[in-house]
Amino acid sequence: MVDSGLYGAVPSTPLLKDELDIVIPTIRNLDFLEMWRPFFQPYHLIIVQDGDPSKTIKVPEGFDYKLYNRNDINHMLGPKASCISVKDSACRCFGFLVSKKKYIFTIDDDCFVAKDPSGKEINALEQHIKNLLSPSTPFFFNTLYDPFREGADFVRGYPFSLREGITTAVSHGLWLNIPDYDAPTQLVKPLERNTRYVDAVLTIPMGTLFPMCGMNLAFNRELIGPAMYFGLMGDGQPIGRYDDMWAGWCSKVICDHLALGVKTGLPYIWHSKASDPFANLRKEYNGIHWQEEMVPFFQSVKFPKGCTTVQKCYIELSKQVKARLGKLDPYFNKLADSMVTWIEAWDEFNPSENMGAATAEVPNGPAQGK
Amino acid sequence: MVDSGLYGAVPSTPLLKDELDIVIPTIRNLDFLEMWRPFFQPYHLIIVQDGDPSKTIKVPEGFDYKLYNRNDINHMLGPKASCISVKDSACRCFGFLVSKKKYIFTIDDDCFVAKDPSGKEINALEQHIKNLLSPSTPFFFNTLYDPFREGADFVRGYPFSLREGITTAVSHGLWLNIPDYDAPTQLVKPLERNTRYVDAVLTIPMGTLFPMCGMNLAFNRELIGPAMYFGLMGDGQPIGRYDDMWAGWCSKVICDHLALGVKTGLPYIWHSKASDPFANLRKEYNGIHWQEEMVPFFQSVKFPKGCTTVQKCYIELSKQVKARLGKLDPYFNKLADSMVTWIEAWDEFNPSENMGAATAEVPNGPAQGK
Repeated sequence: MVDSGLYGAVPSTPLLKDELDIVIPTIRNLDFLEMWRPFFQPYHLIIVQDGDPSKTIKVPEGFDYKLYNRNDINHMLGPKASCISVKDSACRCFGFLVSKKKYIFTIDDDCFVAKDPSGKEINALEQHIKNLLSPSTPFFFNTLYDPFREGADFVRGYPFSLREGITTAVSHGLWLNIPDYDAPTQLVKPLERNTRYVDAVLTIPMGTLFPMCGMNLAFNRELIGPAMYFGLMGDGQPIGRYDDMWAGWCSKVICDHLALGVKTGLPYIWHSKASDPFANLRKEYNGIHWQEEMVPFFQSVKFPKGCTTVQKCYIELSKQVKARLGKLDPYFNKLADSMVTWIEAWDEFNPSENMGAATAEVPNGPAQGK
Repeated sequence: MVDSGLYGAVPSTPLLKDELDIVIPTIRNLDFLEMWRPFFQPYHLIIVQDGDPSKTIKVPEGFDYKLYNRNDINHMLGPKASCISVKDSACRCFGFLVSKKKYIFTIDDDCFVAKDPSGKEINALEQHIKNLLSPSTPFFFNTLYDPFREGADFVRGYPFSLREGITTAVSHGLWLNIPDYDAPTQLVKPLERNTRYVDAVLTIPMGTLFPMCGMNLAFNRELIGPAMYFGLMGDGQPIGRYDDMWAGWCSKVICDHLALGVKTGLPYIWHSKASDPFANLRKEYNGIHWQEEMVPFFQSVKFPKGCTTVQKCYIELSKQVKARLGKLDPYFNKLADSMVTWIEAWDEFNPSENMGAATAEVPNGPAQGK
């Protein structure tokens, strides 16, 4: 195996400093950034302000950021702004749309720096970058987990033809302390905390779906960005808290089709605050019902051969959503239309790049300025 | 979720004491059992002596065991003894055949008690039993790993209809110290040791194959026993060290078809001694080549609807092996014939039990005496 040299080395300059944006959806002052300062300060932040645009969000000094509120979203997208959710962290995907970088890391403002079992503070962003820059192995399971990690490899019986792996598009990180439970589980287990540090990164196998949480997530925007639409949630919609799930299921089936990898596991962040289970139940009850249909739908999605880019896959997916989930609730027709609007907006904001062409290395476009 | 009460409780009597056999293939005195005494002594051991049957294998005092050498195998199986490998740890499956218990734990004689990160000795057998007695979740990935473990659950976005899980048939444990590498990797990384304790058990998703190692393995013999044939390896065969891989691929595709679960992860054992990479290379070179065909074969195996028992699936599999792998090498025709012989022997030794009927709880047969 070719050692990428990433593991074990302490980078003298932050990895991907000019190639990654950090996207944060928020409704409050960003004091949480103080704890992240050593890790985030070298990077550009895209802050998506949800709720009342007249409110001022304070950002600690010294960070390089751009903040967008609802007025900005409406102004920049015009009628297409309808595809960006209101009063829901789903609005974060606006940040993915306007970023000009190759990579995105997105994190919630109630997430803090966690410590590994040795007591060392975890540089979550650095781990995500390692995950994204090393290959994925979705075609066959490696029992020692990530074979590209220092001290590990492919075990006996792993076909050699599969050991090169494929390009990683998504890195899904986890959470210590407050686990990401649905409202019913929150209500039943109000005191449960995640205290277990599982020292592993693994590829989600081909054909397997997972519940992608948006709290602590990184992805290669050039490879999978157009599929990272967080749907229509929150204000005026019959559903909330399924934004990241939707993006996860859409992006996973597209990654599987385009032979792109999805990893989960490290890094952990410290999730500080359980959201209100009663409010969550109100947001979730339709989703809890609908996911019983949504998951089998995504498990059976097939793309025609002509779907060679993320955009083409996503438009095809929107058609299948309308055809197969529209009968579940009219909401899915609206969502399918928004999926199309999202791709139109994506293409408008990312015109010069051959975005989503998974088969070739895509160079960064020229518009990298801040 | 219903708490099975298994986790966290210290059992006053050993779990499944009269329902589990420990199968050990060996060519040497079993001094390694001294270290396992606190954990293994309550259980019955089935020792399968490989190699020269005139050699005496010493077993430490106080263990309840039955030892079978090649003469016993030939005597008991008659002409069907041809399906049991000679001079290869694949002979361990003879122990699965003659066991009368519901569960099997099999371990190699160079495996010792490992310690967890807190320094506590790991009762590997107890962890395997916990794995086997709690459900598997192969239809959707849970990002916090085993949802049935204390302190964990299903996360947001996990369909409620899938939370009951399915019965677990196989528990695959791992190894600290000497990793289970193939000969080329051993040669390239002679000093690599597995020092990372990953505190997780996870279900191998439906449709995903993995390299099952026989060093530290447990399974429900009633549910999947007939698929745990370790093939024709070693003396007189063109291949070695693929016995457990073969059993793993056969049993996984059958588990997937019959909706039985396969887990991997905890428990760890301490693997003490790296085998000779030069000897391993001689045993493996055909397998390394052939696995490039074997894995795609198993990835595409489909069973007709009539295959409702493990035996029926296995006979069907033997036909597909002959039809699709026979052209790779005549060895696979011989192996396919042995698969049939194995099932005939299995049915002969397990006549009264409705073995392999995955849809119903199978009671223990009456022949439990030692």
